[in-house]
Amino acid sequence: MAFVGRAVVERNHLIYHCPPPLHRHLCAQLFLDQTPFKKMAEIIKVHGSALSTATQRVLACLHEKELEFEFIPVNMAVGEHKKEPFLALNPFGQVPAFEQGDLKLFESRAITQYIAHGYTDKGTPLVIPGKQMATLSVWMEVEAHQFDPVASKLNWELLFKPMFGIPTDNAAVEENEAKLGKVLDIYESRLAQSKYLGGDVFTLADLHHLPNISGAMRTQVKKLFDSRPHVSAWVADITSRTAWAKVVAVNK
Amino acid sequence: MAFVGRAVVERNHLIYHCPPPLHRHLCAQLFLDQTPFKKMAEIIKVHGSALSTATQRVLACLHEKELEFEFIPVNMAVGEHKKEPFLALNPFGQVPAFEQGDLKLFESRAITQYIAHGYTDKGTPLVIPGKQMATLSVWMEVEAHQFDPVASKLNWELLFKPMFGIPTDNAAVEENEAKLGKVLDIYESRLAQSKYLGGDVFTLADLHHLPNISGAMRTQVKKLFDSRPHVSAWVADITSRTAWAKVVAVNK
Repeated sequence: MAFVGRAVVERNHLIYHCPPPLHRHLCAQLFLDQTPFKKMAEIIKVHGSALSTATQRVLACLHEKELEFEFIPVNMAVGEHKKEPFLALNPFGQVPAFEQGDLKLFESRAITQYIAHGYTDKGTPLVIPGKQMATLSVWMEVEAHQFDPVASKLNWELLFKPMFGIPTDNAAVEENEAKLGKVLDIYESRLAQSKYLGGDVFTLADLHHLPNISGAMRTQVKKLFDSRPHVSAWVADITSRTAWAKVVAVNK
Repeated sequence: MAFVGRAVVERNHLIYHCPPPLHRHLCAQLFLDQTPFKKMAEIIKVHGSALSTATQRVLACLHEKELEFEFIPVNMAVGEHKKEPFLALNPFGQVPAFEQGDLKLFESRAITQYIAHGYTDKGTPLVIPGKQMATLSVWMEVEAHQFDPVASKLNWELLFKPMFGIPTDNAAVEENEAKLGKVLDIYESRLAQSKYLGGDVFTLADLHHLPNISGAMRTQVKKLFDSRPHVSAWVADITSRTAWAKVVAVNK
């Protein structure tokens, strides 16, 4: 399996002058574009499983950035992620792992941040320079610590357990639906104030939610999103993005 | 209660020229120093509890940066964090919350990142510019997703439950000690290769661990750290930092 988008090969000039304040954003953007990539031509490799939400998070980011990459499937059914050579890429034995020349990364949200901060001139910006980055960072942490644990648990109980023929724990579903409802109440307030979680534009704070939301929309948990108008509009918006459609298409 | 360190008031020049490649790091550092802080003179306020690990994470960061701040205690025993006016600072009702003028942040790791990226010219760097930031980011995610859940659970069972007169769940202790052991085996390998988790210098990737490690060292879990030589040396190093001593001193 291989996904090939647009190549990132051109990076043919450096900007040495960074004149007065109005241009400082540009200066930083250019810095971020150039510094982390001394070996720009080296192909990005993603080792993962198309069914894994963490892998999907990274693939969505790469598609948003319109970057070329090679996808190397890890057969989790036979435990490839718990053995060498995968453990050399991620000692915790979890997909995905990311390679670009001698740079080896794991943890999906670290990978997406590397891509977003590194390739600011490609595709969707995904991060916001300056002070607003702090607010974006808050909502990335909210996804990781408030949303993901309950949404992942619900998808495990309602989506993956039935797939593997394991009985669903209904008490856990009830408990986590109640928790998710409270989280989504806060999202509803936030999204009444700003179109996206991090601000006025789509960023990593939204993107990181896509895999779990996409799963939840195929279960009874959908009602929790649908019953909140701003959350519902946000879900419709972010799940209809072209980059996300490319991730979903692989599993159809 | 108020902690007052050194004031951050001077920020009296802008650098407009960003000459050839060797100086690009400097350019970015200067950008990061200046852009996020249009209202530099505004005092930093931290609303939290000195006993909360998430609050301690932010306090450690502020002390490393030698920044002046005002600490506003939130009385969690009477549920102040679950009521207004605290909920206006963090709708999730968790400490700490951070204020600086009109900037309001929550989620401890988002706050520390804002401080570390914003005040690069103050105190300990805590972040590494350029490509190595990606590796640092991996280990920050490892702390959040691999270490914190098990270490927090163990501290809850072995430190806080006895404090509140609640019986410890020994099965949960056994299960989480086994999990923590596996995480620390990976840390032992990592710390055999580099002095700190993110690289050769102390960064946020190490700092974020301090509150939970400090708690664990007061319980039977200490043996899991002590039995691994590189982990043990790292723990001794990071817990003996002056900034951390200032956080610990408040609870003595």
